[in-house]
Amino acid sequence: MSGYQSFQPRSRVLMGPGPSDVHPRVLEALSRPTIGHLDPQFQELMSEIKELLRVVFQTRNELTFPVSAPGSAGMETCFANLVEPGDKVLVCTNGVFGKRMQENVNRLGGELVNLDFEWGEPVCPKRVEETLAQHQDTKILAFVHAETSTGVLSNASELAKIAQNANVLTIVDTVTSLAGSELKVDEWGLDAVYSGTQKCLSCVPGISPVSFSQKALDKVKGRQSLVSSWFLDLNLVLGYWGEGKRSYHHTAPVNSMYALHEALVLVVEEGLKQCIERHKKWHSVLMDGLVELGFEPLVAPEYRIPQLNAVKLPEGLDEAALRQELLNRFDLEVGAGLGPFAGKIWRIGLMGNSCNERNVVYCLSALKECMKR
Amino acid sequence: MSGYQSFQPRSRVLMGPGPSDVHPRVLEALSRPTIGHLDPQFQELMSEIKELLRVVFQTRNELTFPVSAPGSAGMETCFANLVEPGDKVLVCTNGVFGKRMQENVNRLGGELVNLDFEWGEPVCPKRVEETLAQHQDTKILAFVHAETSTGVLSNASELAKIAQNANVLTIVDTVTSLAGSELKVDEWGLDAVYSGTQKCLSCVPGISPVSFSQKALDKVKGRQSLVSSWFLDLNLVLGYWGEGKRSYHHTAPVNSMYALHEALVLVVEEGLKQCIERHKKWHSVLMDGLVELGFEPLVAPEYRIPQLNAVKLPEGLDEAALRQELLNRFDLEVGAGLGPFAGKIWRIGLMGNSCNERNVVYCLSALKECMKR
Repeated sequence: MSGYQSFQPRSRVLMGPGPSDVHPRVLEALSRPTIGHLDPQFQELMSEIKELLRVVFQTRNELTFPVSAPGSAGMETCFANLVEPGDKVLVCTNGVFGKRMQENVNRLGGELVNLDFEWGEPVCPKRVEETLAQHQDTKILAFVHAETSTGVLSNASELAKIAQNANVLTIVDTVTSLAGSELKVDEWGLDAVYSGTQKCLSCVPGISPVSFSQKALDKVKGRQSLVSSWFLDLNLVLGYWGEGKRSYHHTAPVNSMYALHEALVLVVEEGLKQCIERHKKWHSVLMDGLVELGFEPLVAPEYRIPQLNAVKLPEGLDEAALRQELLNRFDLEVGAGLGPFAGKIWRIGLMGNSCNERNVVYCLSALKECMKR
Repeated sequence: MSGYQSFQPRSRVLMGPGPSDVHPRVLEALSRPTIGHLDPQFQELMSEIKELLRVVFQTRNELTFPVSAPGSAGMETCFANLVEPGDKVLVCTNGVFGKRMQENVNRLGGELVNLDFEWGEPVCPKRVEETLAQHQDTKILAFVHAETSTGVLSNASELAKIAQNANVLTIVDTVTSLAGSELKVDEWGLDAVYSGTQKCLSCVPGISPVSFSQKALDKVKGRQSLVSSWFLDLNLVLGYWGEGKRSYHHTAPVNSMYALHEALVLVVEEGLKQCIERHKKWHSVLMDGLVELGFEPLVAPEYRIPQLNAVKLPEGLDEAALRQELLNRFDLEVGAGLGPFAGKIWRIGLMGNSCNERNVVYCLSALKECMKR
């Protein structure tokens, strides 16, 4: 006897900032027999995943594929490939993930220009425009579309326009927005975007879909210096994920790709538009119910991310104890605050397969029960 | 109708260089309901995975955990954290993965000293000792324990001793050796090792177990410069995977961790020693059968990796056509040669759950069938 047992998780209702509830079809796909990463069957699957990702990103970018690692590695794929030492990068920070972008620029030897915005507020296009005018040698503008730490949606379309006028590339974090909020990579002209599988795609965590415009790809191909990461260097990764003959770069997480494919098929079956509408619909029902219970939305209505509801708790509640009670008594996970918002707000997710009437009603009822005393 | 269908792979017998056949229990574990990456249940699982990894690595290193990305990212975790710009690193190259180590050193600004060995031969300890004597300012010695591209096992114990005498740290690729060949991290004194899940652990691909000695960790903590990768920076990752309170760094690939846990439980149930013995046993039966069919071992007997059999094909065979026939007619995957060995050798894997009598007999019979003409 080894003393070690198989792990049998108690299942939860996932209404935090991700992972979200994974659809049974996705879990089933995940457990299909593993095949080789160079198997012709798998190569066909790879092509279909790329097509399906183009649908959800609303892009025709050839360079659209899933990075074999979580969202943070997707972020790093964008920065490590596009930022060369000395490149001036304007980062807009209105939450945790903007700060992470700054870290990326610093570590890659880029020249960071940081623009801070109040947490809970969107990125202000006017200030970005002014700053770009002051820093005419800026190469890249980076911002977060849907800031997961605060529940704020910024105007990616307007910010991208400003970047185009200033002739700078954009790197945009779409981890939480993909398939939950409107996101039009081509129409808006975003140059490099990265996302995650565990949010509105309701797939298992661990994979990061990315998409690069031709302009962004040209910058990668014209680099003077080597990309610091061998694993994330697009010049190499494309030998495997690009068009044409697929040659070995790394061993792809085969089963996670089955799951991602199934999750994407589910979005396309529902329809991307309908999927985004559904997030809006249940968001407003949930938020009304939360307000009735005494919660206060952190974000002004026009900037709220439907799939991630940031709320201040009613006066006098012990947020940690209440979160724990929801988890222990109702198997319901909601998200705590991050950084300066730790202990102050909750982030209640309604992402992908978690976004339905059953969860909204369950969450509000469970909360009501716990708040009875 | 979207036109996209669920992906239903035809299952294969995996006898290439990995992935190997995944145990049904591991596939089943993989598909259990996803829970949050900060869920107390998941945190317990993380602790148990760390314990189990210490068993298979034969180490007491506290810093032993699975990187949330494939083996190449495990390699990069070791190099990016341990190599500072200007550090002299001696890389021993006797195959593809040694070359990849060189790439890592170059990209990180290390001063590369490369020592080439014949592909198909092990790293020669004497030459390493001489080279270290010539380069007394060397900080790190890096080599591949089991070179997956050639099927050669090098003497990690002896190489580590030489490194210790020269007061340099070791980075050792144990991707193919872990749980298939003897590997004693503490007894041999290896400082930083990385592996993969899809070889002798017979888990799904996509995760890279690593282990760092205290000396290696001290070097990481004493760095003058920031680690170039935010995602792989151990100073940050340890906030999540270290001891004590687990705080968010990235979203762990939750379901892949269920699978890894189950795969490790299976190794411990069998017994690590028995598991390694099993690889030796079926290796010798397979190799005898291959020789009988006219295949010629690439590697001298004392340096062969039991779990990865590198063989030259009998004269006059079209290797690509034969591999394709094995795949199409028998659903049997064997590995092609890499680099200078492309088109010249095969790599027939007997890894983890793929290493059993049934597969050995099936492979030899299928080969016999295909070679009849």
